[in-house]
Amino acid sequence: MSFLRTPDPNPGWLSESALADARARVPMLYVEAVPVQLGDGGEVIKVGILLRVSPSGSITHCVVSGRVMHGETVRDALGRHIEKDLGPAALPQLPPSPVPFTVAEYFPWPGVSPFLDARQHAVALAYVVPMAGDCQPRHDALEFAWMTPADAVSPSVADEMEGGRGTLVRQALASVGRLP
Amino acid sequence: MSFLRTPDPNPGWLSESALADARARVPMLYVEAVPVQLGDGGEVIKVGILLRVSPSGSITHCVVSGRVMHGETVRDALGRHIEKDLGPAALPQLPPSPVPFTVAEYFPWPGVSPFLDARQHAVALAYVVPMAGDCQPRHDALEFAWMTPADAVSPSVADEMEGGRGTLVRQALASVGRLP
Amino acid sequence: MSFLRTPDPNPGWLSESALADARARVPMLYVEAVPVQLGDGGEVIKVGILLRVSPSGSITHCVVSGRVMHGETVRDALGRHIEKDLGPAALPQLPPSPVPFTVAEYFPWPGVSPFLDARQHAVALAYVVPMAGDCQPRHDALEFAWMTPADAVSPSVADEMEGGRGTLVRQALASVGRLP
Amino acid sequence: MSFLRTPDPNPGWLSESALADARARVPMLYVEAVPVQLGDGGEVIKVGILLRVSPSGSITHCVVSGRVMHGETVRDALGRHIEKDLGPAALPQLPPSPVPFTVAEYFPWPGVSPFLDARQHAVALAYVVPMAGDCQPRHDALEFAWMTPADAVSPSVADEMEGGRGTLVRQALASVGRLP
Repeated sequence: MSFLRTPDPNPGWLSESALADARARVPMLYVEAVPVQLGDGGEVIKVGILLRVSPSGSITHCVVSGRVMHGETVRDALGRHIEKDLGPAALPQLPPSPVPFTVAEYFPWPGVSPFLDARQHAVALAYVVPMAGDCQPRHDALEFAWMTPADAVSPSVADEMEGGRGTLVRQALASVGRLP
Repeated sequence: MSFLRTPDPNPGWLSESALADARARVPMLYVEAVPVQLGDGGEVIKVGILLRVSPSGSITHCVVSGRVMHGETVRDALGRHIEKDLGPAALPQLPPSPVPFTVAEYFPWPGVSPFLDARQHAVALAYVVPMAGDCQPRHDALEFAWMTPADAVSPSVADEMEGGRGTLVRQALASVGRLP
Repeated sequence: MSFLRTPDPNPGWLSESALADARARVPMLYVEAVPVQLGDGGEVIKVGILLRVSPSGSITHCVVSGRVMHGETVRDALGRHIEKDLGPAALPQLPPSPVPFTVAEYFPWPGVSPFLDARQHAVALAYVVPMAGDCQPRHDALEFAWMTPADAVSPSVADEMEGGRGTLVRQALASVGRLP
Repeated sequence: MSFLRTPDPNPGWLSESALADARARVPMLYVEAVPVQLGDGGEVIKVGILLRVSPSGSITHCVVSGRVMHGETVRDALGRHIEKDLGPAALPQLPPSPVPFTVAEYFPWPGVSPFLDARQHAVALAYVVPMAGDCQPRHDALEFAWMTPADAVSPSVADEMEGGRGTLVRQALASVGRLP
């Protein structure tokens, strides 16, 4: 089978309709990155939050998030989405371990989990990713802000986060021993 | 949107052709369980290995493994596949935490990861699952055997495991501090 | 060295003055257990909190906590302290993995970590432990109560917890994906 | 109590006899670091092994290992021992999370765990630590070598490792998905 010998170099790109078909049939695999800044001793001191303008004009807060494509490794997907959202100078320290700090399950209906995604059933592997460089919002992000852990979990930020990701940020901080 | 209020009670079942379409387009999300028996102090003393006859007539070793369906939680998928493979009396202690001991990435081509699946690109969340009851092989399994950790990682077993799952069993044992 | 062949069967018991000497010289190793009840699917539905009367007469909340003795395994210490605090019918499911959900560092002075212990520098390996049996407070505990995750992290409970253990309970719930 | 307000800036240094007293009474808390080099994508590609000449003249292999002092954080102890063994230019990326990949329990008698330390009962929190700089053996180390994961777990290396640390290195590699 020639497909085994010469995989499509870009096998994951799908037309919108092919993607819609897949979305209706199987859970979508996602990766999410909570960007952090580290202090001199390696402890988390800041959390990075993206701001986007939603189609309705309201501002929402989010973390780096995106789909794993067919044929792509989880690690490559993580690096790709970080570069897409935070630019090529972000210098992420991708985690040596493939084990996420949590597995976030997004359903299009409420009540199953703390996470919601109206478009689809998605399962996200979520990682805390230290950034050694300069993060510049790209793609459809309006702004990127470094916040203290206390500010990042404050109601004014957490309540504006997409799909329940306020919980995700708190889980991220708990996993590194920095939940305020 | 009525779909949000009354989700299909069985949304994940797909025709073979619909599943084949999805498989060609996105990574399939799987769960895998390495069944274990615990000693009195809660430490792992035995590992459960399934034996199957492959289409070509050879015997292969495997662990519990299966797809997460659309609309199904990871936890429900794990329980469903354990019951399917080990019977209703297995009494699995599903892990309180959604965090797997590893994320195993299966590709249809070699060299990307230690794991291979000729059918598809699959990403498996893998858990160590203690069994408190009686495990009886069902589905297409020929036999189920409890082995010591040393036997489970011996070449005679590990080399016969499907898709590189000898590595998965060793990672499972390492995660519980019982790698021989 | 005969000590290697015939270890003291009870090597960890120390006089108060010998323990005080050690406490002044090295960090004390502790284990802590956050007791939980699981639902049918294995998810955490209740958190167990102990109530004690402090020497000053106020009521404090706490989790299972105690020292690892010389010559004792972490697992044995965990089982011993659970039995001491919750009785012999608690039927704890000790974790197969030795990896804690967090490492809590208690210092006798504030500002270094969220955790305080006026008596000593202690480092605790903390585990979420499902209880399958009946928990009865023993030792110096006044009462034991099962609470929902939301109640367990509410200010009225969390603010009364000894040494910053409100943070520990929240980290425990975050590690199992149940932080409210 | 003035000790609470003005802690000894160097509270952890002990005379040999005071340390021997503590060692006989309570488990000693250790940290261990398995140094690694990362590839461009953040995956572990090399493992660092230290070589020492033992008092009997034989060469033993080891990882970075040392005691946590009274009043010292786990993170500070990890950084201090890495600098002591690998020099000030090693540029370790200390882990954001305090959760170790394993808890290694060393006993002075065999049979309790895979780990042995003739001097003491020690409990080590073990971390995989990426090194971004130049590692130069210091202290009592003879040499420091970067090895592939396959070489690091080969019998010729693993069998020469102190106190069962061949198992520790394999657990470290398993935790990052790189166990050969």
